[in-house]
Amino acid sequence: MSTVPVTAHGTVDGGLRQRAGKVVPGGMYGHLSVANLPADYPQFFARGQGARIWDVDGNEFVDLMCSWGPMLLGHAHPAVDAAAKAVIDRGDVLNGPASEMVDLAERLVENVSHADWAMFAKNGNDVTTLAIVVARAATGRRKVLVAAGAYHGIAGWSLAADAVGMTPQDHANTIFFEYNDLDSVEAAVDLAGDDLAAIVVTPIRHDLYRDLEAPEPEFARGLRTICDRAGAALVIDDVRCGLRLDTRGSWESLGVRPDLSAWSKSLANGHPLAALMGNEAMRDAARRVLATGSFWLGAAPMAAALATLDELERTDAIGKMRAAGRRLQDGLVTQGVAHGLQVTVSGPPQLPFMTFTGDATFERAGLWAGACAHNGVYLHPVHNWFVSAAHDDDTIDRALDATDEAFALVRDTFGAD
Amino acid sequence: MSTVPVTAHGTVDGGLRQRAGKVVPGGMYGHLSVANLPADYPQFFARGQGARIWDVDGNEFVDLMCSWGPMLLGHAHPAVDAAAKAVIDRGDVLNGPASEMVDLAERLVENVSHADWAMFAKNGNDVTTLAIVVARAATGRRKVLVAAGAYHGIAGWSLAADAVGMTPQDHANTIFFEYNDLDSVEAAVDLAGDDLAAIVVTPIRHDLYRDLEAPEPEFARGLRTICDRAGAALVIDDVRCGLRLDTRGSWESLGVRPDLSAWSKSLANGHPLAALMGNEAMRDAARRVLATGSFWLGAAPMAAALATLDELERTDAIGKMRAAGRRLQDGLVTQGVAHGLQVTVSGPPQLPFMTFTGDATFERAGLWAGACAHNGVYLHPVHNWFVSAAHDDDTIDRALDATDEAFALVRDTFGAD
Repeated sequence: MSTVPVTAHGTVDGGLRQRAGKVVPGGMYGHLSVANLPADYPQFFARGQGARIWDVDGNEFVDLMCSWGPMLLGHAHPAVDAAAKAVIDRGDVLNGPASEMVDLAERLVENVSHADWAMFAKNGNDVTTLAIVVARAATGRRKVLVAAGAYHGIAGWSLAADAVGMTPQDHANTIFFEYNDLDSVEAAVDLAGDDLAAIVVTPIRHDLYRDLEAPEPEFARGLRTICDRAGAALVIDDVRCGLRLDTRGSWESLGVRPDLSAWSKSLANGHPLAALMGNEAMRDAARRVLATGSFWLGAAPMAAALATLDELERTDAIGKMRAAGRRLQDGLVTQGVAHGLQVTVSGPPQLPFMTFTGDATFERAGLWAGACAHNGVYLHPVHNWFVSAAHDDDTIDRALDATDEAFALVRDTFGAD
Repeated sequence: MSTVPVTAHGTVDGGLRQRAGKVVPGGMYGHLSVANLPADYPQFFARGQGARIWDVDGNEFVDLMCSWGPMLLGHAHPAVDAAAKAVIDRGDVLNGPASEMVDLAERLVENVSHADWAMFAKNGNDVTTLAIVVARAATGRRKVLVAAGAYHGIAGWSLAADAVGMTPQDHANTIFFEYNDLDSVEAAVDLAGDDLAAIVVTPIRHDLYRDLEAPEPEFARGLRTICDRAGAALVIDDVRCGLRLDTRGSWESLGVRPDLSAWSKSLANGHPLAALMGNEAMRDAARRVLATGSFWLGAAPMAAALATLDELERTDAIGKMRAAGRRLQDGLVTQGVAHGLQVTVSGPPQLPFMTFTGDATFERAGLWAGACAHNGVYLHPVHNWFVSAAHDDDTIDRALDATDEAFALVRDTFGAD
């Protein structure tokens, strides 16, 4: 690849990093900060189109992060964005919802197997947190079980006990278990006693710094059985996987239906929207809790969501993502072998990831990912990636050209395994 | 007025209420539900333009709620929306922020007197909650003082102890005081002991079911003194008032500067955006906390915010809102006297409100507001209203025609005072 991003050298992004350093804490914060990424990652972006993004210096990248999930059909999708812009022109956020809210709730209830109703918000964190509030209102209980290391948002209840700025009371009602370990769930249930409100779980294990892990069918079914036995709510956090794996809900193929599910990221292909869905047993509690926000009923993201669902069905977007991700995963496996490097390629193809064996400090991963960025491919060394339906064979092959060069650099630096 | 909304009768909104009743808990939830409003309020809206809105049946209203605050310059503002749509066309939510984040942070730091930095999110609730997390990280303490009855969002820490679905632990670190009552603040500070992290306060008292109340200057200054003495953070929740009263911050005219301030609603004239701003003392804590969300760095609402600030300054929007609100308030006082009804008109003109004397159960307010809705004016019986810079004299006079008829109905029903 001829593209050579030089943003990281700090002088060619129009001074944005320096300016941001003065008026934004740390220059940037949260998951979009490049502070812990290799030097070749750009901090500021100018444009996206389909499966490509451009930084503010004009460097082009194949995008394998898809805005950390939201881009399901590709950046700046014409049909989706036209739907949103038409609503903006007529008035987006009004004194009440528009007809799109009803259309979208009906569509989701029709698509998502466990859902009898839907509520809308803006952040994934809004709806994961709303899920436990609804579960507590429905059960009159307090304790919530969460897998250790799982990410459910920035609210205190889901974070580790030592999270900065949180108090012991923020997670006083949270009990941790190990993903795919029913014994650890049973132990947590025992700790909860007669106060178990909900078990919250992601459909796959997609923790930072780990190979992705599919749920054992017995684990998924076991959670359902345990919740039924205890009269607690099973909550699937489908914020990251929702619509990428299965429009019916990510555990439908396992035959496991939750009581509540939280969706966001890709629901409106980048337009800010989140949804909590629930079954009949949760409806009255959902009606009684306080759930409201200034922009939650804006119709533009809902129109975008309806257009996204149209495109998803019309174009077999899930099939396209699966094929693109599989091509990428197969290519990485082949390249690893060819370079004499041991790697683990994990995840469903739509959310691929790769680690190097024996790379506990992620040095190899950092070097490799940085070389990919340098050569025009944007992926992440410690967080799962995403492909979109805009990732065609040519795009994936272009990405694989860069990953091949990056493998060579890792082998030259660390030696073959 | 000849407009006669008939939505409330339930058969002419295309069946939306009936459909929503099946797929949305309670048919609608939160502050946009009309369940507790008089029968003449429409639930579903189709369009907004300037100071006017239209329900799905085509009935036109003068909008005195402004989408519950966000509409500062009026609905579907061409310059603001063009800025947002241009970003959508090039790619809104990407793998990192765009230059607009830096432009906007610089602009806010320049405008808002206490602010040395800004962070962005989607909901008012995001940034009020982030404020206390930052305050706790900065101070290493837990307790937060909040005025009883004030609204700071849907998070448990700010809600009353009996809020549905919340646990005792959610508000274990919250201590309530009375607005404008420094003795009650001192008592709360004593209760907090050496564990006081922050005092959170709205710039005016704008609780539901109450006349709006300006802050006593000694109260505002006293809070600053108490926080300085205790080494705690003063947090102004400017979500509802921000940009309507004073672009420098709503307590700048009182000479009181907070350590942290939370902004949202009108920041981008309806596009979903929130901002936490802070001073130098809070910067390091803000850098250390976990603050992130999938859509938080989307550039379209930031471009809209920059355009909103441009328009606000170029057109003296605050002066226009003040004049429109004053014309409305003066008109209501005059009409009340003319009809022999005792009313209290309260609030800064930009956020006007009116109650009837001796109307403890808000029966008169409900009848009056329902008649206003029936005659094409949308306001609220128990929550403050909002005017925008699009409310010109003709619009206000048209509203006053409807309020006059509504006063006559109240007098005919309940008699003169």
